[in-house]
Amino acid sequence: MRVLVYPGSFDPVTNGHMDIIERAAKICDKLIVAVLVNHSKAPLFTMEERTRFLKMAIGDRENIEVCSFSGLLVDFMRSVNAKTIIKGLRAVSDFEYEMQMALLNRNMDQEIDTLFMMTSINNCFLSSSVVKELARNGARIEDYVPHAIAPFIYEKFKKAGV
Amino acid sequence: MRVLVYPGSFDPVTNGHMDIIERAAKICDKLIVAVLVNHSKAPLFTMEERTRFLKMAIGDRENIEVCSFSGLLVDFMRSVNAKTIIKGLRAVSDFEYEMQMALLNRNMDQEIDTLFMMTSINNCFLSSSVVKELARNGARIEDYVPHAIAPFIYEKFKKAGV
Amino acid sequence: MRVLVYPGSFDPVTNGHMDIIERAAKICDKLIVAVLVNHSKAPLFTMEERTRFLKMAIGDRENIEVCSFSGLLVDFMRSVNAKTIIKGLRAVSDFEYEMQMALLNRNMDQEIDTLFMMTSINNCFLSSSVVKELARNGARIEDYVPHAIAPFIYEKFKKAGV
Amino acid sequence: MRVLVYPGSFDPVTNGHMDIIERAAKICDKLIVAVLVNHSKAPLFTMEERTRFLKMAIGDRENIEVCSFSGLLVDFMRSVNAKTIIKGLRAVSDFEYEMQMALLNRNMDQEIDTLFMMTSINNCFLSSSVVKELARNGARIEDYVPHAIAPFIYEKFKKAGV
Amino acid sequence: MRVLVYPGSFDPVTNGHMDIIERAAKICDKLIVAVLVNHSKAPLFTMEERTRFLKMAIGDRENIEVCSFSGLLVDFMRSVNAKTIIKGLRAVSDFEYEMQMALLNRNMDQEIDTLFMMTSINNCFLSSSVVKELARNGARIEDYVPHAIAPFIYEKFKKAGV
Amino acid sequence: MRVLVYPGSFDPVTNGHMDIIERAAKICDKLIVAVLVNHSKAPLFTMEERTRFLKMAIGDRENIEVCSFSGLLVDFMRSVNAKTIIKGLRAVSDFEYEMQMALLNRNMDQEIDTLFMMTSINNCFLSSSVVKELARNGARIEDYVPHAIAPFIYEKFKKAGV
Repeated sequence: MRVLVYPGSFDPVTNGHMDIIERAAKICDKLIVAVLVNHSKAPLFTMEERTRFLKMAIGDRENIEVCSFSGLLVDFMRSVNAKTIIKGLRAVSDFEYEMQMALLNRNMDQEIDTLFMMTSINNCFLSSSVVKELARNGARIEDYVPHAIAPFIYEKFKKAGV
Repeated sequence: MRVLVYPGSFDPVTNGHMDIIERAAKICDKLIVAVLVNHSKAPLFTMEERTRFLKMAIGDRENIEVCSFSGLLVDFMRSVNAKTIIKGLRAVSDFEYEMQMALLNRNMDQEIDTLFMMTSINNCFLSSSVVKELARNGARIEDYVPHAIAPFIYEKFKKAGV
Repeated sequence: MRVLVYPGSFDPVTNGHMDIIERAAKICDKLIVAVLVNHSKAPLFTMEERTRFLKMAIGDRENIEVCSFSGLLVDFMRSVNAKTIIKGLRAVSDFEYEMQMALLNRNMDQEIDTLFMMTSINNCFLSSSVVKELARNGARIEDYVPHAIAPFIYEKFKKAGV
Repeated sequence: MRVLVYPGSFDPVTNGHMDIIERAAKICDKLIVAVLVNHSKAPLFTMEERTRFLKMAIGDRENIEVCSFSGLLVDFMRSVNAKTIIKGLRAVSDFEYEMQMALLNRNMDQEIDTLFMMTSINNCFLSSSVVKELARNGARIEDYVPHAIAPFIYEKFKKAGV
Repeated sequence: MRVLVYPGSFDPVTNGHMDIIERAAKICDKLIVAVLVNHSKAPLFTMEERTRFLKMAIGDRENIEVCSFSGLLVDFMRSVNAKTIIKGLRAVSDFEYEMQMALLNRNMDQEIDTLFMMTSINNCFLSSSVVKELARNGARIEDYVPHAIAPFIYEKFKKAGV
Repeated sequence: MRVLVYPGSFDPVTNGHMDIIERAAKICDKLIVAVLVNHSKAPLFTMEERTRFLKMAIGDRENIEVCSFSGLLVDFMRSVNAKTIIKGLRAVSDFEYEMQMALLNRNMDQEIDTLFMMTSINNCFLSSSVVKELARNGARIEDYVPHAIAPFIYEKFKKAGV
């Protein structure tokens, strides 16, 4: 059984992430969306929120699973017995960083390989940061995130009073 | 059954190509290595030679098949009933060209998607052109192409008297 | 009166060019689309054809003019008494080449400046070469070039029997 | 009447900014230099200082106006009834970020377009950060910022005792 | 006597740095490894630690000297009467930043020039940040830093309890 | 004695090349400017002309030598007992190609290393191709090539009647 792992911060999930999730789910038996507990930069949304948003956006899909991990990706890969990472690429700057990560991960574990997909053309300017910047300024984000998620993002900023 | 198609000129096959072939074969049920009959630039090796070299290098592998195609890749994909292309990326310049090709192919057929792998670190300076330049100058190419192929490459240059 | 000059080979004009033409025409009093007689690489379409295609695609627009030039762009700019060049940018590789050209042109004539527009998202994989490659293989090009032009492109390849 | 908006942090204005301002002012009827109140990263100079420095550097120029804005650029554009943004490009990394911003802004408002100019060759290594780093270390900045501004920058660092 | 200066944060020294040090030492009479006291971002290791690690890793090499500096690199260059900087390049993003720094330094002092070396292929994914991320997660770092240094890095994280 | 080899086509030598030659000559005991007899692309100027132009431009400089070579650069390096190559970098596209060449050369001979210099700011848009394009169109090239060379370049185009 082929398993793909799609790691990320998903702070919050965008339509760009959803596009990669949809396309990746088509080419494997099981897709694990793995939310990173990142100690170095503080996310806006809690792990619980980020995971819940992903589950709401994905809904009932038999071959997609959402879970979280902390520490190194290669350790997580071993723990779920998966060997293939999937990542999206938007731009040259993504490319260089991801190439270095892919080389490092293979250097740490020769069994682990990384596959890349180009982000769909309509999402190439989209990122979690962009969504947060828009929401902070009260702009429409409904075209950029899964529909059910948008109200929660607005609410976060209202509460924070940012 | 998941089928991956790895298209290219393979003029001639290098260890860089073989690395992608080995890694791609691990993540699919069947890998089709598809040699492009390229009308716009004249290859050094004939289609027959390029295909034969690939078969020699790959040997008896149940889930790998070598074949050739002319025309558009999307048409070939349909003809073999495959939906996923696999390509190697070495550098930023590769990335931009391949991104444009991937977007074009998806635009022409929404069902067809492209996966990318980073070239292994030891092959990041390697290409068919480099191998031909070395062979033309009588330099060692044994580290850069499959062993059985090297003599045929040297011979080509001897005959051509280039 | 502000004049913009949009130079190119237009071999043939694509929807990517038309997008730049439409957007550029909005921000100037007069737009001159300048077809380059390029001595170094042989175009597929004659100067007459390339100019005619542009005129068909643009139609009756008061502030857009199509003409041709040979030699250096800075000389052409002076001959039409224009000081501002407009170019489209699709990718990093475009960017570097165009930056060098813009610096060279300003170095040759301090009065001449270059403006850039990012290609629209739907055209970022589109180029004259792509259109020719598709037409050569009998693929649909109607989404990539102005409607009235497509038949002439197909016909060219039929005649050439390429 | 054609209006261009040149947005930025201008923390502080450099000769690189002034070069874009001079060149942009030549190709429009009115240039609005728009100082961004950036909530996410704290500027060294206050909004009042940044605006004052720009006004000192620009002096009495009929068709240039300096003002400030907070929130989204597209909202500001609408509020001043302008449709065209002008930005400077120095390097590939600028290019990718600005391309994403331009695509996002057009996606949010189809009427708004972005024009780019290449930074003049003598300013291609220049940025507000570089100027601050130099001033912090007591190095000469007179070649990199408008003459009247330099003393105020030194003074800031002296006061801050950084 | 030709002197090369290799500046950096070395927070901590990696095998990537050591590779540049070894290769640079071969092409000069004296190599000065200059540890930057960086005021803007807080290093993990103290200046004393970073310098000691470098000395441990380099050992007794007649033509290599380790020292520290604060302020501008061009001022340090003058203070040690050196005119040539040496830097390693890993990727396009390195390249752009370093090109700007090299141009700035030459602009500040025409006598000072910068030489670049490509990072060795096995270190192209390696950086001080990567090493710290691995150590923080208890992963093996022995392949990425000089042998004698590894225990001190682990210890730092144990103490910090990060 | 430290020897640097600066290889290239020099078809013809430009002020960009001369800038690298001047700066490289300062940091070595002997600089060998090595003109490549390139079999794959036909140069405009003969080997004799390219070498003569370089000698005219360099004049009587004790530590600079001009010679030609065919075949592989690593073989030439060994034949002159040199171990260090020097190259100029203008742009990201240069960088990627040169990185691959440097890695290949070190892979073929571990003793051979490559140093890079950033092209001076005033030459960053300059290349032999640009000079030829300008001369072909009768434009001024006196700012872009060594003074004594310009007449010979114009003459070539007059004779060729290109």
